[in-house]
Amino acid sequence: MNPDITRERENATFNVEKLTHILDGGIEKTKRRREIESLVISDPDFQSEDLNFLSRSERYDAAVKKSAQMILKLREYGISDPEEIYCYKSVFRGNHQEALGLHFSMFLPTLYTQCNKEQFKKWVPLAESFKAMGTYAQTELGHGTHLRGLETTATYDPATQEFVLNSPTITSIKWWPGGLGKTSNHAIVLAQLHTQGKCHGLHAFIVPLRSMNTHIPLPGVVVGDIGPKFGFDEVDNGYLKLENVRIPREHMLMKYAKVEADGTYVKPPSAKLTYGTMVFIRSMIVGEAGHALAKSCTIAIRYSSVRHQSEIRPGEPEPQIMDYQTQQYKLFPLLATAYAYKFVGQYMNQVYHRITGDISQGDFSELPELHALSAGLKAFTTWTASEGIEVCRMACGGHGYSRCSALPDIYVNFVATCTYEGENTVMMLQTARFLIKSYQQASAGHQLSGIVSYLNESERRLQPQSVSSRPTVVNVNDLASLVEAYKLRAAKLVEVAAKSIQQELQKRVSQEDAWNNSAIDLVRASNAHCHYVVVKLFAAKLGEIGDTGVHSVLSTLALLYALQGIQQNSGDFLQTGLLSVPQLSQVSQRLKELLAQLRPNAVALVDAFDYCDEMLNSVLGRYDGNVYEHMFEWARRSPLNKTEVHESYHKYLKPLQAKL
Amino acid sequence: MNPDITRERENATFNVEKLTHILDGGIEKTKRRREIESLVISDPDFQSEDLNFLSRSERYDAAVKKSAQMILKLREYGISDPEEIYCYKSVFRGNHQEALGLHFSMFLPTLYTQCNKEQFKKWVPLAESFKAMGTYAQTELGHGTHLRGLETTATYDPATQEFVLNSPTITSIKWWPGGLGKTSNHAIVLAQLHTQGKCHGLHAFIVPLRSMNTHIPLPGVVVGDIGPKFGFDEVDNGYLKLENVRIPREHMLMKYAKVEADGTYVKPPSAKLTYGTMVFIRSMIVGEAGHALAKSCTIAIRYSSVRHQSEIRPGEPEPQIMDYQTQQYKLFPLLATAYAYKFVGQYMNQVYHRITGDISQGDFSELPELHALSAGLKAFTTWTASEGIEVCRMACGGHGYSRCSALPDIYVNFVATCTYEGENTVMMLQTARFLIKSYQQASAGHQLSGIVSYLNESERRLQPQSVSSRPTVVNVNDLASLVEAYKLRAAKLVEVAAKSIQQELQKRVSQEDAWNNSAIDLVRASNAHCHYVVVKLFAAKLGEIGDTGVHSVLSTLALLYALQGIQQNSGDFLQTGLLSVPQLSQVSQRLKELLAQLRPNAVALVDAFDYCDEMLNSVLGRYDGNVYEHMFEWARRSPLNKTEVHESYHKYLKPLQAKL
Repeated sequence: MNPDITRERENATFNVEKLTHILDGGIEKTKRRREIESLVISDPDFQSEDLNFLSRSERYDAAVKKSAQMILKLREYGISDPEEIYCYKSVFRGNHQEALGLHFSMFLPTLYTQCNKEQFKKWVPLAESFKAMGTYAQTELGHGTHLRGLETTATYDPATQEFVLNSPTITSIKWWPGGLGKTSNHAIVLAQLHTQGKCHGLHAFIVPLRSMNTHIPLPGVVVGDIGPKFGFDEVDNGYLKLENVRIPREHMLMKYAKVEADGTYVKPPSAKLTYGTMVFIRSMIVGEAGHALAKSCTIAIRYSSVRHQSEIRPGEPEPQIMDYQTQQYKLFPLLATAYAYKFVGQYMNQVYHRITGDISQGDFSELPELHALSAGLKAFTTWTASEGIEVCRMACGGHGYSRCSALPDIYVNFVATCTYEGENTVMMLQTARFLIKSYQQASAGHQLSGIVSYLNESERRLQPQSVSSRPTVVNVNDLASLVEAYKLRAAKLVEVAAKSIQQELQKRVSQEDAWNNSAIDLVRASNAHCHYVVVKLFAAKLGEIGDTGVHSVLSTLALLYALQGIQQNSGDFLQTGLLSVPQLSQVSQRLKELLAQLRPNAVALVDAFDYCDEMLNSVLGRYDGNVYEHMFEWARRSPLNKTEVHESYHKYLKPLQAKL
Repeated sequence: MNPDITRERENATFNVEKLTHILDGGIEKTKRRREIESLVISDPDFQSEDLNFLSRSERYDAAVKKSAQMILKLREYGISDPEEIYCYKSVFRGNHQEALGLHFSMFLPTLYTQCNKEQFKKWVPLAESFKAMGTYAQTELGHGTHLRGLETTATYDPATQEFVLNSPTITSIKWWPGGLGKTSNHAIVLAQLHTQGKCHGLHAFIVPLRSMNTHIPLPGVVVGDIGPKFGFDEVDNGYLKLENVRIPREHMLMKYAKVEADGTYVKPPSAKLTYGTMVFIRSMIVGEAGHALAKSCTIAIRYSSVRHQSEIRPGEPEPQIMDYQTQQYKLFPLLATAYAYKFVGQYMNQVYHRITGDISQGDFSELPELHALSAGLKAFTTWTASEGIEVCRMACGGHGYSRCSALPDIYVNFVATCTYEGENTVMMLQTARFLIKSYQQASAGHQLSGIVSYLNESERRLQPQSVSSRPTVVNVNDLASLVEAYKLRAAKLVEVAAKSIQQELQKRVSQEDAWNNSAIDLVRASNAHCHYVVVKLFAAKLGEIGDTGVHSVLSTLALLYALQGIQQNSGDFLQTGLLSVPQLSQVSQRLKELLAQLRPNAVALVDAFDYCDEMLNSVLGRYDGNVYEHMFEWARRSPLNKTEVHESYHKYLKPLQAKL
């Protein structure tokens, strides 16, 4: 064990294990999680070469191998609870992706929820035994978030009782679905349903892609890998071009909407029924943001405690880089953010499960709020976490750039969340739509409840108009007071956006153009709303914590999170008159004090995330802090070192020398 | 040609070609650049598979091949002017790196400037004929920016008149030098010189690494590749462990410092002589920031003009995504930034050459200012450009994540500049040291000249103290007035940092701790200083432009750049009383107008950068806008598509199915 990091651990003022239990949701959950993790770690089948040393085809091969092993192991161990499967996967995936990911996350759940009884009986056993390996093909080459724009057609032919599927244009080629390129032999294809000469919009169809015996693509199915990406090297994201592919009528998923044998279309009872999965996945991503940032902070903070560089005082030994104020200022607010997002993720999970219960009882009342919240928070947390991962990487200096740090892998695999499952700016505008609607309702005299109740007329009237007209009441040392300030900032910025729309309308532009001409303000309002929600939920979490030591250090983190957000958005807080100029100087001063206060607990705070070395897969983030010897050992395994002299010397350099 | 992009070009209000000449530095330079580019483009030897489809070893192989070809071609065409070589390389490298990069950029220049006459006669011909292929080995596993911390030793042995080189610890292993792992047979090694029982600090030595006949590493030389990185896959960044490696005394570079046969050490005449290269490389990086961002904007803006998505008005066709205000708000300020950095790069280049002239006359007076400016601007521009590239990538939605967009390549290869050639935060603090020193000189009554003259006492006394005590004079529609505002902000933030240091000193902490405890403020001050310099230089450039159409569009860009900087740092401008709250609303409004105003010129403004398709290597950024058919064509070439059924199906999936 590196003595520096040992000393850090000795200096901690709280019980790390207790904080781990809080993050896991209880001592029993920690225990079970560790049991499952050790199943993977101790399994010789999962010991493999660092994926970074392999070619893309080898990486895909290794991922398929691992997925196939995992399926057998999960059965062997009798693990079937989704949370436990998720936990198992988190370790075995490390910072990479799973080859059969979409079979689990989209193909199976769609079959479970959208098959009618006969379909369920046929398809679920096929899928559960992996005879049918599937993916979910929605996005097209020219069409993403805007579903109405999708072009793939499924035209019903009553003569044969079949649907004929087609990709009528280049832009209609299905593009991006994970596992579509090489792995899947089936896909759930989203297509515009045409029957009896009429288009009824998007519906889901089970389309066989490859022979279940030979795996060779079926006639009319042009399928393949879309090529290398920023990350996800292990995954065969694919394309699919359908050329008059005929499937039986029963391949349309018919739990809700139906096409009868003669071609008669039967509408689904509610459009909201397909809403749920999307909301669930976005909620999950919020937790993933906390996860990715927590891993990154673990690596950067551990490395900062063993890395010595430059000098603060001449003649003295080089200090740990964590002693530099600038390093603390980079990393500790991100550490606070990671905790914040982990807690928000827990909250979203709880709300989702509660509301899902309501929905199954036919109560959709809370869905719009959850939909708006999950959209905005997905965008808010993935943007900030992505930036934060890169800050962590660069805080490791040059070595962060090496794949041995794991930070490049964490970044490229996480940053995809900013553009998938709803592009972030579009997400922010969806939340804004809910905020503006709520604002208008409140203005019309409705009393709002829930998280947007701050938009109520009565509350708004209590808001500050400007610095001069009222005394400043925010106390920068009091978290509750800061939550209030964030709330008022959100209220103010929603109002600014609403007024921008009004002003545009007064110029006699259309409603739609007024919206687009106010889009910058709308995104800003959503952002402030989400920021408020995060600060509020972090503060609320503190109320649940009994242990004094843990409560104290989390309170410091929460205060740091809130104050740093104010400093970074100081223009908003000054502009809305919520803070005065002298108070902002106070904020800066207080931030520096909090950094110093957190310094002795930094390593313990990342230890509490409890990522084993096998999950981090980072030489810089090793628990024992023995970084340099392992970097050397890792480098020697680089494929370029397999031979002393690379063949290119004989092929190009020696001939070059001969010619000059 | 895609009709959307044709229409964009028709709508431009200025002459694209004239703007290209300004960016190149004159019509003749444009002509010559295009001649050189066409040499590469038309050369069948440079047509190769997309590097993204290859394994790392294949990429290295391809890069060595290309470099060897390039060396022969440059001789064949008689291209020897450094600027022309740079231009040639820019095309042939595309978004990737060159295998022999450090031989050109560090090995040869060091030989040119630090060899004495005899050494020059021996080594320069060897290096120019590539018999000696070299790199520059400074950074060590445990030591980066802080040169005094380097541990490699060169101990003089008068008995044999040799230096004995050693890597005494794990942390002293040389790490990162490009071309060190497999390519080079020599390195200039920086080591602590020991002679006659005394250490004389860092000196440079020519160390043979591999046999010039067989390329096999020499005895005592442990050398290899450091493994895969975020980018730079083509480069064999290497490690080097020296175990009692003996080199003749004449292998120490002796133009300035010397060790005589008996071991007597002779000091160099000035320590500043090695300063120049560092300053030059950092200045170059500023231009590279403009370059990388300009490429990214070209891709994102062209794609935004042909990409249709969602709807603004219901029932109408999907609009070009460039019509969304949020998209304009992401991209146009970055476009303005790319122009700004290109102009700053031109300026730095000119200043460097002027000052180099002075230095060769023995006049070092301007060097500290240039050193401080190049350090800060390197950090300021690389940070913002890196973030900007990612914004451009994400503005392309999901497709930006594909390697076919080229944006991942541009990002990973550029972002390394944030941590190499001086880690950015350290760079900012170096600039801050200069600013604080200047501030203290001014406070002591000295009259400062040059770029920091705004810190003079007399000027500072004219500055605003707070909103209430003086009328606001900034005119948000006038660029000159905004330059003034940026200047006053910088002055104010330098003062804040200086006062923080004073306050710390009053608490009786040491000078060094006071500095560290004010580091956040110091970085903030440097940042404001650099921002001021960029705005000022952009404004100054406008004065050189005669053409009305070009002047008009560049003025709009400059104003956009300045106003967006104010909006993003509105806290600073409010806090220092430079702007009032109503003025900030004006800024927001004005920004929206400028976005709309730039909209018709956006494509023309990126066309003016004049990157040929071969340099961009981006399917999304194609000049003809025919994106989707080429994406499909590119994807089909993916190595995973070489076979219809990937071998992993037979190896893992079929057996899995059999077991379930």
